Amino acid sequence: MEIIKSLDNKKIKGLSKLLIKKYRDLENKFIVEGEHLVLEAYKAGVLLEIIRCPEYECNLNVSETIVTYEVLKKLSFTKTPQKIMGICKKISEKEIGNKVLILDDIQDPGNLGTIIRSAVAFNVDTIVLSSNTVDLYNDKVLRSSEGMFFHINIIKRDINNLIKELKDKGYYVLGTKVDGGKDIRKIAHTEKMAIIVGNEGAGVKEEILDMCDDYLYIAMNLKCESLNVGVATSIILYELF
Amino acid sequence: MEIIKSLDNKKIKGLSKLLIKKYRDLENKFIVEGEHLVLEAYKAGVLLEIIRCPEYECNLNVSETIVTYEVLKKLSFTKTPQKIMGICKKISEKEIGNKVLILDDIQDPGNLGTIIRSAVAFNVDTIVLSSNTVDLYNDKVLRSSEGMFFHINIIKRDINNLIKELKDKGYYVLGTKVDGGKDIRKIAHTEKMAIIVGNEGAGVKEEILDMCDDYLYIAMNLKCESLNVGVATSIILYELF
Repeated sequence: MEIIKSLDNKKIKGLSKLLIKKYRDLENKFIVEGEHLVLEAYKAGVLLEIIRCPEYECNLNVSETIVTYEVLKKLSFTKTPQKIMGICKKISEKEIGNKVLILDDIQDPGNLGTIIRSAVAFNVDTIVLSSNTVDLYNDKVLRSSEGMFFHINIIKRDINNLIKELKDKGYYVLGTKVDGGKDIRKIAHTEKMAIIVGNEGAGVKEEILDMCDDYLYIAMNLKCESLNVGVATSIILYELF
Repeated sequence: MEIIKSLDNKKIKGLSKLLIKKYRDLENKFIVEGEHLVLEAYKAGVLLEIIRCPEYECNLNVSETIVTYEVLKKLSFTKTPQKIMGICKKISEKEIGNKVLILDDIQDPGNLGTIIRSAVAFNVDTIVLSSNTVDLYNDKVLRSSEGMFFHINIIKRDINNLIKELKDKGYYVLGTKVDGGKDIRKIAHTEKMAIIVGNEGAGVKEEILDMCDDYLYIAMNLKCESLNVGVATSIILYELF
């Protein structure tokens, strides 16, 4: 068994570039950490290769590279990663389903991960990320989604164009808005729905709100100005999907 | 105007101890960062003193200590804190209200902050923290609650004893449980309710579940094993309170 011990190993140096979004996009690959995510990647058919420490046994039918823990750490953002990682090819986009969640520039990776997890829980078919949304393959997004990003169609689009398209196809397009919206408990449930939630600070952009069929909000105590965006989105999905 | 420039200043050294839980408990004080939280602390009547940089003007009727940014940073966990902080006395506990949320060993400060924010939004009267719950006055808890901890009664108790007490007083005590619970949509709403949510990994402890009147869960797609605890708690509060 060959064990890579050198931090200057050419292969490891190449893989460590995947910690940077630019290279993930260029190579169409990403890294997952830990047994749970490696297994989910395998089941989803996107696991290309396993990188692991010699003491960590793994019985998946995938090529393996064995490395020391010091070398493995070079491929991780965390200080004490689990002793197994997977190199994956990015998941291919599928057609848009009937229950669509559109994210307008969500910035916090933890929020995106949480939203993906809740979207699977409440039967969203497709999540659409605007071009300025935090990168899906960011390690914190992957971790906080608890592997759920393997179980849902996530696509990247120009939202303005997409909304026009969805409206032409008869989707009921709803924007979230603190003022002047309808209580989510009073929103009609239709077969084809698209819900748009916005950036942590700024909410949904005005130009996008202007295109919506209706607006929704969550009724709450006036002492509280707003909810965490992951929480608000989850409640909306719980109520509407 | 005297400006403290030395990192070895006795007063600053004393205050910096408040970054550690032990000293917060000992002195019954805590630090908040940024204008928003300082103002909320002032309104809540717990702001003892302001620490700020000379260029940051502030018109509250509270004693001030002016420091350089380097000195101010010594009182913060963040690398680039806002230029104003407040030293506060801990908020005193009030009587338990009718809508009670009990947290059994929540560990992540972000989750606790999010839960506090949602608890205010959905009219919880009292949040009860078990003795092993993350410290309320941890800087990340304070930040992620967006100042909402000033607007709700938060107390610390031995949960086992408290549940006995609540049951004697006629509260309907509900534990969260993935298996064998009732769908939250089918739970009767009573005047006095207590809901118990558990630790991120382990859920609510068995011995505590044994004492509950009923169990609840959130119906969701089977592909998703569980929701983030902040999200799950928020949905439960949205539905029941």
